[in-house]
Amino acid sequence: MKASIIGATGYTGVELLRLLSGHPDVEIAYITSESQTGADIMDSYPHLRRFYSQALVSMDKMDAILAESDVVFVALPHGHAMEVGKRARNAKARLIDLGADYRLRDTAVYETWYKVAHTDRDAQAVYGLTELNREAVKAAKILANPGCYTTASILALTPLVAEKLIDTTTIVIDAKSGATGAGRGLKIGSLFCEVSENFQAYGVASHRHTPEIEQELSKAAGAAITLIFTPHLLPIGRGILTTSYAKLKTGVTAQDVQEAYEKMYGGEFFIRLLGQGGCPATKNVRGSNFVDIGWQLDPRTGRVIVMSAIDNLVKGAAGQAVQNMNVMFGLPETAGLTQMPLYP
Amino acid sequence: MKASIIGATGYTGVELLRLLSGHPDVEIAYITSESQTGADIMDSYPHLRRFYSQALVSMDKMDAILAESDVVFVALPHGHAMEVGKRARNAKARLIDLGADYRLRDTAVYETWYKVAHTDRDAQAVYGLTELNREAVKAAKILANPGCYTTASILALTPLVAEKLIDTTTIVIDAKSGATGAGRGLKIGSLFCEVSENFQAYGVASHRHTPEIEQELSKAAGAAITLIFTPHLLPIGRGILTTSYAKLKTGVTAQDVQEAYEKMYGGEFFIRLLGQGGCPATKNVRGSNFVDIGWQLDPRTGRVIVMSAIDNLVKGAAGQAVQNMNVMFGLPETAGLTQMPLYP
Amino acid sequence: MKASIIGATGYTGVELLRLLSGHPDVEIAYITSESQTGADIMDSYPHLRRFYSQALVSMDKMDAILAESDVVFVALPHGHAMEVGKRARNAKARLIDLGADYRLRDTAVYETWYKVAHTDRDAQAVYGLTELNREAVKAAKILANPGCYTTASILALTPLVAEKLIDTTTIVIDAKSGATGAGRGLKIGSLFCEVSENFQAYGVASHRHTPEIEQELSKAAGAAITLIFTPHLLPIGRGILTTSYAKLKTGVTAQDVQEAYEKMYGGEFFIRLLGQGGCPATKNVRGSNFVDIGWQLDPRTGRVIVMSAIDNLVKGAAGQAVQNMNVMFGLPETAGLTQMPLYP
Amino acid sequence: MKASIIGATGYTGVELLRLLSGHPDVEIAYITSESQTGADIMDSYPHLRRFYSQALVSMDKMDAILAESDVVFVALPHGHAMEVGKRARNAKARLIDLGADYRLRDTAVYETWYKVAHTDRDAQAVYGLTELNREAVKAAKILANPGCYTTASILALTPLVAEKLIDTTTIVIDAKSGATGAGRGLKIGSLFCEVSENFQAYGVASHRHTPEIEQELSKAAGAAITLIFTPHLLPIGRGILTTSYAKLKTGVTAQDVQEAYEKMYGGEFFIRLLGQGGCPATKNVRGSNFVDIGWQLDPRTGRVIVMSAIDNLVKGAAGQAVQNMNVMFGLPETAGLTQMPLYP
Repeated sequence: MKASIIGATGYTGVELLRLLSGHPDVEIAYITSESQTGADIMDSYPHLRRFYSQALVSMDKMDAILAESDVVFVALPHGHAMEVGKRARNAKARLIDLGADYRLRDTAVYETWYKVAHTDRDAQAVYGLTELNREAVKAAKILANPGCYTTASILALTPLVAEKLIDTTTIVIDAKSGATGAGRGLKIGSLFCEVSENFQAYGVASHRHTPEIEQELSKAAGAAITLIFTPHLLPIGRGILTTSYAKLKTGVTAQDVQEAYEKMYGGEFFIRLLGQGGCPATKNVRGSNFVDIGWQLDPRTGRVIVMSAIDNLVKGAAGQAVQNMNVMFGLPETAGLTQMPLYP
Repeated sequence: MKASIIGATGYTGVELLRLLSGHPDVEIAYITSESQTGADIMDSYPHLRRFYSQALVSMDKMDAILAESDVVFVALPHGHAMEVGKRARNAKARLIDLGADYRLRDTAVYETWYKVAHTDRDAQAVYGLTELNREAVKAAKILANPGCYTTASILALTPLVAEKLIDTTTIVIDAKSGATGAGRGLKIGSLFCEVSENFQAYGVASHRHTPEIEQELSKAAGAAITLIFTPHLLPIGRGILTTSYAKLKTGVTAQDVQEAYEKMYGGEFFIRLLGQGGCPATKNVRGSNFVDIGWQLDPRTGRVIVMSAIDNLVKGAAGQAVQNMNVMFGLPETAGLTQMPLYP
Repeated sequence: MKASIIGATGYTGVELLRLLSGHPDVEIAYITSESQTGADIMDSYPHLRRFYSQALVSMDKMDAILAESDVVFVALPHGHAMEVGKRARNAKARLIDLGADYRLRDTAVYETWYKVAHTDRDAQAVYGLTELNREAVKAAKILANPGCYTTASILALTPLVAEKLIDTTTIVIDAKSGATGAGRGLKIGSLFCEVSENFQAYGVASHRHTPEIEQELSKAAGAAITLIFTPHLLPIGRGILTTSYAKLKTGVTAQDVQEAYEKMYGGEFFIRLLGQGGCPATKNVRGSNFVDIGWQLDPRTGRVIVMSAIDNLVKGAAGQAVQNMNVMFGLPETAGLTQMPLYP
Repeated sequence: MKASIIGATGYTGVELLRLLSGHPDVEIAYITSESQTGADIMDSYPHLRRFYSQALVSMDKMDAILAESDVVFVALPHGHAMEVGKRARNAKARLIDLGADYRLRDTAVYETWYKVAHTDRDAQAVYGLTELNREAVKAAKILANPGCYTTASILALTPLVAEKLIDTTTIVIDAKSGATGAGRGLKIGSLFCEVSENFQAYGVASHRHTPEIEQELSKAAGAAITLIFTPHLLPIGRGILTTSYAKLKTGVTAQDVQEAYEKMYGGEFFIRLLGQGGCPATKNVRGSNFVDIGWQLDPRTGRVIVMSAIDNLVKGAAGQAVQNMNVMFGLPETAGLTQMPLYP
């Protein structure tokens, strides 16, 4: 299989290269960068030596890329994948977009939150939270790979919502992400001296991952859900932890909660259930495609607290993209994704 | 004025030394350590050179300590300050306890959460969240210095509770603390290799600061409040950030919220109001006694999100203790506490 | 092949588990811990879930371990491997010791630096710096796996010494290691609050890796070398960087230096030569078995500066141990060791 | 006294504000920024709240600045202070330049290393390493504040050079700096994700602080010295550690070394001598103007190892600038500089 990466020099692009280097069935065709066209990617990322020494090409070569690749990963800022998507319609390549363009089924919602016109409304993209949408993923021509915060949030809450164990008007998601989530762009807020020994919230009551989480939880609930989502910036490289709160419906027990998680995720390789009292830690999933989920009840207030941890660059981006690719092409779902977490 | 410190070799004790070294009216009398009796504290903390070179004594010298000190700071694990408190009853020294022994007015609640018998029930200690209890602090013989999480949480929520702007059954406090909060004790969970590049919750639905927060918010509300409090461990040295959520009562506006904070804290030097949309950062208060508070409304869900940041060793421990000492002894409240935060 | 690990609950032991989990030819037989006998290693290291759920046994089972394993990795503090070594003499298992007991050919030197009697002087152990001693490694019954600092130092300097390009009386090695090098033991100096935002030297002019570096460089030079080695503690988890200095012999050119490195390492997969002006970074080798080497000449002083970077837990410990195992058992030398570095 | 800061929005500028806020005799007149003219500095640095809320002006106001200030601190990139210096010649204000323009007595050396023409060759600037040049500092009209690496390096080695205890052809300085040394500029190499969990050298055999160190050590020796200086980037915010090596002259003893340091620095408040075996740590000086110095002899190789630690933003920049200001204006040398280090 031949894979290409559009936007290969960001952290997500280079993480795709890491995961694909260990994939038994994939070979890299093209990697693109507009700002570094012609350069060898190894010059930007010397850790790639022995694995990739390859020239970056421009998106001008899109026709060749789409014709010669089985799968094309798009790791561009939102608003740019739609152009690729339209051109791919009749091409050989299937598309996996790691950005936001195809994630929201209602393109009006997309336009409201992203302030960009949606120019490919008929795309029929499939939302690729693999564990929850596996059948549809198999057939996807355009696969919308979920956001990092959203993957961690949706997987944490879906069993409770689907089994109707919680009052969905009371959901609060307090999420924390490592700095790789902000990418390699040059911003004062991403400097070591600003991030290290620091912690704060951002995008309070306005983060763009909110409607995506609501879309998928509403689907699981069979009814519209509105919730609060608050992201924070952690002084670590990789990792997201979400801590979610909701009021339990009357009579719901710990056993009900436990069974809901086991029923939905009991057979999932990448979801590790820590059970009641389990506290996931970002370091326990670092570098891997795992999602660790733990929870606790608070009888004093009648609430459930659910925590989930992922590596935002793996299960929150490149790893889930490879997982989706595996499903789309009939490969073993774990191919290229069986790295043990790097601890400590 | 002469001050002594019981338990001077922990991070809180040594932070008291830092703050008192710059205090115009205070001289150190005794510093104690049971494990390092006889040693010079500078051997444990070489950064103290030029400021303190003083032998640690044992608590065996308590009679002399209580007789020769105007104020005695107790920085011991919970359960130990009560013994000092009883002996201080008729001594010259006034006591500031930085532990938990005197914080809960209902000693039965103390015994439930701390699993220790309370042996000094008649102590008449004053709860020293200075801004909220200043008059009582002035006269305190035994001053219960608040916990770190509790200081940040109570100050963030009291205006909303006191002005009856929120539904108090919906309060969620998601709190994050730096590793100095765990002290200098030897635990695997405090090792660099375990804390760095990591993040997780702990003490979910069971942390001992919960009843202390509830006690003070209930007092402000004039009615019993039960809430959820979830602490997390941040890979930073100093700093606590709290993110709190509550449902606004019908008709409450942003202006109401703003006025509530200004009314209560407008004249407070150590509380810096960042207003609507303000996102406090732990690094902006590092090394200082400030509390930064910001908030946001979420009209989609009808909730308010309040964030507060403190340095847990300063406003969350040693700084507030010095602030209380200043109030108790009629000194300017900011004496010794006007350091600018250390940024970056 | 069956492998066992003596002392599996330290950072080195658990790193062996990580690397062996991806090895196509190895299955774990026994893992031991004296302090956690009977417990599941997954309880100490939850990141292992999905890979290892196995009870720790005591070294009391040494007979079974030595009889049923093809290779036994010993990850114990120095002084303890000798006992295992003596018992292994007539057993099936071949031994790879990750500690210091068998590294120094002159056991008197061992006793001087380690302050312990050497009780297995006839062991005929092979020093396993794989790239420099591959033929001997193949036949080893007891393999002394090199130290972390020593691996980085010896590989950096051997070509210059072997080709007689430098004045060997002028060698200075200034080395810096991440905190995993100190292990998981409970020491104040290993706490997050002490290591983070800090940097200092330790063991100045007295570190035990000094004689080991001297032994191997002397062997390469064919003459005794005495040098200075200074270790420092970095606030990172994994990684060693060495910066070495030596006076070039008269007339030596950049081309001579370049050729010396290419001649010795040009065919080595795990050694990545960055050439003149190349500055290795610890993050570029994190999680991998690579050694990155760069160098520069300083014509103003007539000196060469050589820098090398490794992951101390991989090429500095568990990775090189697996590499040696591969050589000892006739497997492909890179088996289980082709992970790409985890960046960022 | 009125002080102004040219280039107030960099880390050095804002550190000057921190130190001057606690200075009993100084009031801020003007603060400048070309990129943020008109903005309040508190918007860039919210931690300043309660201390500074002041509009940034442009350097267009230089005439007023020079006329109305007693002292003007220049915190600009090299090449820009010369213009200010020429205009200040006949103005009231005395100048303290925190950049490199006036540090090298031989302007040809400046032009060689900095690739910029020197346009103010007759400036008669005084090199302000306070402890070594106090008398000249008193009378300075233009004060060249030393570099951060150079302060740490020169103070470490001057006693050995001045007392002729070492062979000055053998000096090696291996230096490590925190990321604040690179400033707040936007560079990929300064991003959190690149710096954290990483360590590497840069500017090998070519760093611009080299000639400055050589200039001052040559002056102390009374003979030209050429040496190697290698900087490295530490994943910490503040702090420099230098580790220097030199061959001792025959017969030099530990007592000779100890006496050399005591003779030169015994009366210096800001220099803390840790003596033989002392290992300075950057965290022990963080936020303070101290220089910690320790050393060790290596009888095996006949070398001395000297280590020094400073906070690069304080003694390496803003703190030493204030110290020089104090000396220039006849104030107590420690005024505004008696903060205890922030530990942990």
